[in-house]
Amino acid sequence: MVLNLAADLHPADLALLMARLPTEQSHTAFSWLPDAQASEILLELSDSQRRDLLHTLQPERLRRLIDALDTDDAADVLSDMSDAQALHVLPDLADTHDVAALLEYDEESAGGIMAREFVSVPPEWTLEHVIEAVRQHASDIDDIYAVFVVGANDQLEGVVSLKDLMLAPADRPVRTVMDRDVITVGTDMDREEVARIMERYDLVSLPVVDATGGMVGRITIDDVVDVIREEAEEDIQIMSGGSGIEQPDDTVWAVSRGRLPWLLVGLFGAGLSGSVIGGFEVALEQAVVLATFIPIVTAMGGNVAVQSAAIAVQGLSSGDIWMDDLGRRILKEMGVALLNGIVLSLLLCSAVAVLNVGHVQLLIATLASTMLTVILVATTNGALVPFALKWLGIDPASAMGPFVTTLNDIIGLSIYFMYATLIYL
Amino acid sequence: MVLNLAADLHPADLALLMARLPTEQSHTAFSWLPDAQASEILLELSDSQRRDLLHTLQPERLRRLIDALDTDDAADVLSDMSDAQALHVLPDLADTHDVAALLEYDEESAGGIMAREFVSVPPEWTLEHVIEAVRQHASDIDDIYAVFVVGANDQLEGVVSLKDLMLAPADRPVRTVMDRDVITVGTDMDREEVARIMERYDLVSLPVVDATGGMVGRITIDDVVDVIREEAEEDIQIMSGGSGIEQPDDTVWAVSRGRLPWLLVGLFGAGLSGSVIGGFEVALEQAVVLATFIPIVTAMGGNVAVQSAAIAVQGLSSGDIWMDDLGRRILKEMGVALLNGIVLSLLLCSAVAVLNVGHVQLLIATLASTMLTVILVATTNGALVPFALKWLGIDPASAMGPFVTTLNDIIGLSIYFMYATLIYL
Ligand SMILES: [Mg+2]
Ligand SMILES: [Mg+2]
Ligand SMILES: [Mg+2]
Ligand SMILES: [Mg+2]
Ligand SMILES: [Mg+2]
Ligand SMILES: [Mg+2]
Ligand SMILES: [Mg+2]
Ligand SMILES: [Mg+2]
Ligand SMILES: [Mg+2]
Ligand SMILES: [Mg+2]
Ligand SMILES: [Mg+2]
Ligand SMILES: [Mg+2]
Ligand SMILES: [Mg+2]
Repeated sequence: MVLNLAADLHPADLALLMARLPTEQSHTAFSWLPDAQASEILLELSDSQRRDLLHTLQPERLRRLIDALDTDDAADVLSDMSDAQALHVLPDLADTHDVAALLEYDEESAGGIMAREFVSVPPEWTLEHVIEAVRQHASDIDDIYAVFVVGANDQLEGVVSLKDLMLAPADRPVRTVMDRDVITVGTDMDREEVARIMERYDLVSLPVVDATGGMVGRITIDDVVDVIREEAEEDIQIMSGGSGIEQPDDTVWAVSRGRLPWLLVGLFGAGLSGSVIGGFEVALEQAVVLATFIPIVTAMGGNVAVQSAAIAVQGLSSGDIWMDDLGRRILKEMGVALLNGIVLSLLLCSAVAVLNVGHVQLLIATLASTMLTVILVATTNGALVPFALKWLGIDPASAMGPFVTTLNDIIGLSIYFMYATLIYL
Repeated sequence: MVLNLAADLHPADLALLMARLPTEQSHTAFSWLPDAQASEILLELSDSQRRDLLHTLQPERLRRLIDALDTDDAADVLSDMSDAQALHVLPDLADTHDVAALLEYDEESAGGIMAREFVSVPPEWTLEHVIEAVRQHASDIDDIYAVFVVGANDQLEGVVSLKDLMLAPADRPVRTVMDRDVITVGTDMDREEVARIMERYDLVSLPVVDATGGMVGRITIDDVVDVIREEAEEDIQIMSGGSGIEQPDDTVWAVSRGRLPWLLVGLFGAGLSGSVIGGFEVALEQAVVLATFIPIVTAMGGNVAVQSAAIAVQGLSSGDIWMDDLGRRILKEMGVALLNGIVLSLLLCSAVAVLNVGHVQLLIATLASTMLTVILVATTNGALVPFALKWLGIDPASAMGPFVTTLNDIIGLSIYFMYATLIYL
């Protein structure tokens, strides 16, 4: 009964069901599943669930499950095992050679997400032959969208979509039907760049070539969709001062360790902000009311910096903004800062005007000067830092973590107390 | 010469080139391009570039360009025009009826991203007939990945991939070859949900059905990839207090208007934080040194809240975290908060111990209590607010905007001055 139910479910749904069962029970349920389904489920589990499960499997079953996978997925599963377990299974696989080759590539590169399965034919074959080749590969390649036409030394000469293959007369040589404008990527290309290319040119499969130009694999859109999602989640975590790789089912220890580094940076920076305030203790003693506006100065600086950094990070990563665009962007951000700075200063000053404070005109002058300067400086900082980080080879997304907000707190408070000393005291 | 060069470029690359030319020149270049390329370029331009360009086109050329597009893209271009221009062009299109139907759907729904072009055949047709049908549609549908088998009243009965179509004997009825487990979506489904489904089940095309279950359109993966990217960018902007729809080439006015609302929320909240400090002015007058630790309290509260909110927002949007998961998640976050709180408090207190301040033990006790409480409360807040927002039907991503950090500033400062009054003063 359970097996009947399971047979109707997609592996992705079964994996979700398993994740909701107690660990023991989910492992038992897994042991009942036929290999074809069980192998697909391996791919859908979270890293930690998969690691737990792999430890419970007999080597022989593990080998069968991995053999049932495409080579890209087999390599992913193997790279998630302990070295001992992986070395035990690898030599017995049907595709040992291909899977071992894939394990050599960086996981974040084109080589790391490509599969070795693809249909390739010589240019002189007729379409009838090509269709026969597709038929022969049909059982071991799930998704065939195109056939690659490959000459001497694996050099890629063209590509034919299945649609074009069906439409032309069967006795034509494939060379006369193929599209010669093939977009390819090298094995070393960063997978984010690969995603950009497939997105930009609306591709569903993309051939990968090695240093000599020979075709060595193929990337499919379903895997690139996962890359896009993962990279977006990584960006969001990095922007919010996380590790970039935190998963909802990580242990408390792992989460804590992942989050601490940025918190330490934040604490150190906040300590510096505190010492700016400490440096003006005499000023504060003369007018404690100045302390009231500390949160406004830091919050406004932080908010505008993050807003302008977000659009720069986004534009840099989508390619809508270029490095040589910097001057124009800064000018524009300063325009926005000026407009918003004026609105916010006016509001703040009107609110302060009704307060019962001594020398209220001088306080207003101090606050207006501070707000305008801080908003201008912080906005510019926010827009500049992503470019600087990119130029330094650091992920621009980290511009929005505690780093920029902390920097702005320090600068903002220094500006505030300087104006306060000059104008108010 | 220019035309020769252009003929070799992909529309996406030509659009980028145009974006880098002065407006006048880019419009002239566009007028030289053949319709097939020019129409594709329309899709690749940014909204504002496209709007400028559309105004320069003669109605007859505009009609030809839109006719050359798939219906989904035609509807997108039309919805970007002024109503007057759109109404002028729409009735003369070859696909008037289909395009008008698509314009009725919400742009963020399945109906808003589907195309009306697809190949459908009755279940009793032989594969030979089906291939003939593909051949007939080949010129007006760019990407054919599958043929949909449709019975009476447009009811979807199955789907055949082109691969399966090529492999089975030509005289078999399609009914015997088709896959009956077809995943479909309704026209009203949110496009984010559509993206989740295609991602989850690794689909390249997805049929859309109306309220009666009749097939009305088809969504392809290339458009869903764009949805995933746009939604991720929207999330990042919303998290950083932006409008969610800011584009790098928006005007200064538009950017300023989009960013102001959250800044006003931030200013109001910071004003409240300020009044918390103002409420403890007497305490501050007794010990101005307390002001020094304000940035530490607010920065730490803000940082940990954003970290825990990020993982909750992410998990809620990916489906890895469920609403009924709340209790378990909060407990875990509190564990993380306790660990990190202890580390950060110890560090801060060691640093303070070497300062030359009166009653340093009492100050340390105040700071340690504050840090632990603030980090626990802020982390819990960060983890809770996304759930609360989702429950209220608000985008959980806005949890990380100025809203949560401001709330935490207020709570954190209140906690700090309460402890300071109780312990230190
Ligand atoms: Mg891999
Ligand atoms: Mg695209
Ligand atoms: Mg497209
Ligand atoms: Mg794959
Ligand atoms: Mg990366
Ligand atoms: Mg990244
Ligand atoms: Mg059309
Ligand atoms: Mg649309
Ligand atoms: Mg997938
Ligand atoms: Mg998959
Ligand atoms: Mg489309
Ligand atoms: Mg949305
Ligand atoms: Mg969203």
